[in-house]
Amino acid sequence: MIVASLRGGELIVVDRLREMVRLAAGLTSARNLTPEVQLRALECLERFGQRVRDMPPGTVRAVGTNTLRAARNAQSFLIMAEQALGHPIEVISGIEEARLTYLGVAQSLAANGRRRLVMDIGGGSTEFIIGVDNTPRDKESLRLGCVSLSSTHFGDGKITSKRFRRAVLHAEQELEPIEHAFNRDHWDEAVGSSGTLRVVQRIIQAAGWSRDGITPDGLNRLADAMLTAGHVDRLALPELSLERRPIIVGGVAIVHAAFNVLRIPLMKVADGALREGLLYDLLGRLFDDDVRSRSVSALAARYHVDAVHAGRVRDTARHLFEQWPWTSAIDRDVARLWLDWAAELHEIGLDIAHSQYQKHGAYIAANADLAGFSRHEQNILAALIRAHRRKFQPKSFRELPAPWNEAGKILAVILRLAVVLNRSRHNIPPPTTLERHGNTIALRFPEGWINDHPLTSADLEQEAEYLRGADLVLTFT
Amino acid sequence: MIVASLRGGELIVVDRLREMVRLAAGLTSARNLTPEVQLRALECLERFGQRVRDMPPGTVRAVGTNTLRAARNAQSFLIMAEQALGHPIEVISGIEEARLTYLGVAQSLAANGRRRLVMDIGGGSTEFIIGVDNTPRDKESLRLGCVSLSSTHFGDGKITSKRFRRAVLHAEQELEPIEHAFNRDHWDEAVGSSGTLRVVQRIIQAAGWSRDGITPDGLNRLADAMLTAGHVDRLALPELSLERRPIIVGGVAIVHAAFNVLRIPLMKVADGALREGLLYDLLGRLFDDDVRSRSVSALAARYHVDAVHAGRVRDTARHLFEQWPWTSAIDRDVARLWLDWAAELHEIGLDIAHSQYQKHGAYIAANADLAGFSRHEQNILAALIRAHRRKFQPKSFRELPAPWNEAGKILAVILRLAVVLNRSRHNIPPPTTLERHGNTIALRFPEGWINDHPLTSADLEQEAEYLRGADLVLTFT
Repeated sequence: MIVASLRGGELIVVDRLREMVRLAAGLTSARNLTPEVQLRALECLERFGQRVRDMPPGTVRAVGTNTLRAARNAQSFLIMAEQALGHPIEVISGIEEARLTYLGVAQSLAANGRRRLVMDIGGGSTEFIIGVDNTPRDKESLRLGCVSLSSTHFGDGKITSKRFRRAVLHAEQELEPIEHAFNRDHWDEAVGSSGTLRVVQRIIQAAGWSRDGITPDGLNRLADAMLTAGHVDRLALPELSLERRPIIVGGVAIVHAAFNVLRIPLMKVADGALREGLLYDLLGRLFDDDVRSRSVSALAARYHVDAVHAGRVRDTARHLFEQWPWTSAIDRDVARLWLDWAAELHEIGLDIAHSQYQKHGAYIAANADLAGFSRHEQNILAALIRAHRRKFQPKSFRELPAPWNEAGKILAVILRLAVVLNRSRHNIPPPTTLERHGNTIALRFPEGWINDHPLTSADLEQEAEYLRGADLVLTFT
Repeated sequence: MIVASLRGGELIVVDRLREMVRLAAGLTSARNLTPEVQLRALECLERFGQRVRDMPPGTVRAVGTNTLRAARNAQSFLIMAEQALGHPIEVISGIEEARLTYLGVAQSLAANGRRRLVMDIGGGSTEFIIGVDNTPRDKESLRLGCVSLSSTHFGDGKITSKRFRRAVLHAEQELEPIEHAFNRDHWDEAVGSSGTLRVVQRIIQAAGWSRDGITPDGLNRLADAMLTAGHVDRLALPELSLERRPIIVGGVAIVHAAFNVLRIPLMKVADGALREGLLYDLLGRLFDDDVRSRSVSALAARYHVDAVHAGRVRDTARHLFEQWPWTSAIDRDVARLWLDWAAELHEIGLDIAHSQYQKHGAYIAANADLAGFSRHEQNILAALIRAHRRKFQPKSFRELPAPWNEAGKILAVILRLAVVLNRSRHNIPPPTTLERHGNTIALRFPEGWINDHPLTSADLEQEAEYLRGADLVLTFT
């Protein structure tokens, strides 16, 4: 965890807390987190929570990565974890992890216009990113981590050359599909981040195997030293802490494989990583440069959304939203942002097929690589898109964690009304008064307007019928 | 049904059989086909079957449209229906129905370079297409049919002006979203197809309400006549058969709505329609101009497939396929075509996200509007794409109807091997000998090659492990 203070638009790190929980080691073969590892994690979060519990909502970001992506019982663990921390915890995709890591690394280095390869080794996944200055370009996340590789190949602690060769080969296999796009020809300098790479660099430098940074020769000498030791318990290397011993062999095998396959001649380890990336991403949100808004626009363009129509739906939705007596725990401005995004994206599914396009749109929103969004957030987007037409099934919202289960339903109703009012795709709907009393939503149009628009009237009747299924009464005059 | 003979590259229609089964009327509110309507349909197919049963496979095409798209029990009905007909029956999407209808209409008219609106009213759906000569451009299929609208609004046969207004309004509601793209501004002439429009034109002309084609005035007079009759049983109109009486009112309401919303001044009914379109589409397949191949290439381009890599995978797959002892009932050339398509498309899912892209690709293939493909065929494509990497689950093939359940599994195995051998994405794999004995697939590479390529060797070992799950043994030397 890092704690930073914002002074004059700059983030000043005021505290860093680090504990190794090694979540990946607690994943059983049936992909469940063991009670022991959950307890270890909850205790750590409890300690961290004491430090951040009183901070205002929205100022703390906590993310889970590979192990929480993979664990079947992640959901129940996360509920306890959020309680222990006192703030929401978002699970992010590997590609989002790659993006944030790059962002964190880039902030710690001077912009130099050169193409950078950034490599970050986690417990269960390893990220590779090529970018220039603050902009990541190619991102990959491989199912390959120092904890998982160590336990697969060196579970009992013994280190033999045969085992090491197999571990490297395993890592090389994972790297094979990205070799073509991430090798030496595509970047000018290689930068490492993560604890594993930092320790590897320190050992190599402390032992005098390299003067500056990680080199292939230094790596070979490190591997030889590990083979000579023959067991993780006998790894007496400078700078290697006791707690990192059991997972360093797998980590070194990954570094080895990456140096071979991507032809890395030298790698220097930078300071920033995922945590710093999260901080800078949060800064963007606070200063009206939310990367999520850019992702939404990019997705809409990629799937050829009719932007004029989507814009009209968004405007109508905003107009109705302003009149809604908003009582949710979700901040009103945040809710408006989500409504905007859903309106911008509600027709992306048309790019796959017209029939049931709301389902296709939801599929895309849930599964696409959307920079800035957590998985949970993508599910909210998907639920809103899914619900924007045809039968209204509040069920999909019930599955969202509170307070989104209620708030999502309301936003979906507002989006539906905006879509209905724009069904002709070219007439701008008139100023509409919205009132809500209990379960009744009353729309009022200008005098005589509804009589002059029998199609809209019929559409609203149909919509009233749909909303009845969600125990809502829609009236209009 | 129409039967045609191919003479000198031209189709000569030698027989036309027409029976009204009115499948849409036999759909219950729970969307099941009643036993009565199934029986009616099976008897009809039995009669048609006598005419075509002995024709070679691949020369008869039979398709189901809206009602079979909607019916929950369509699958079990189709099994009996195919038996009655003696040939496969494909269920096609509304958009494919629109494309084929346009094709059939275009063949019956002289090419004149003008923009044509084609309208086709079916029992449960209505298609609109704008195109020029033989090329359809915009296609829509609305959930609106003469049978369904008649039974919803005139179920007991009574015709009142209030009911008629409501039926027209209902149809106008469905038309509303396409008004903007299909109105008078977007075409030069309107052409009708389908029995409903043909009868409407005949009645109007026979009654002297229009000299040539359907006009708004003629339609108004027809509606007046129907309202005056007051009941479908009293509809004594020239050219209106007894069996069409119960469904003509809904049909006229749809025509009315379309004329209003799309501002159609005049529509002339053409001869060709879906059935003729199917014939010409079949002709393309027989003469190596399969629209499906064009659809596959277009889809690959739309989803930014790496065409060079896909081409390499296709070449390897072909090379292996040539050596496979093919024994399936599916023609060898047909199977090769499917393997080509699957290879071309296997990476489309990458355009949504890298993680689990085989699932995203399968989703796209199953749901996209793919000209020339039936739903069942799209499911085959989806199953092949889904199975091309990671765990091999033969389950998805078991759900395909025979002989695709077995053949699909074999093609998937060949595709998987081709993908594994091209995993580096740039080295072309060497000539490979494939032999199959029972459940064993033996690959042989040139002397020494496998030793020089430890990554491929490791990949093949992994693949052997995956295939064991499908009771297949992979060996390589």
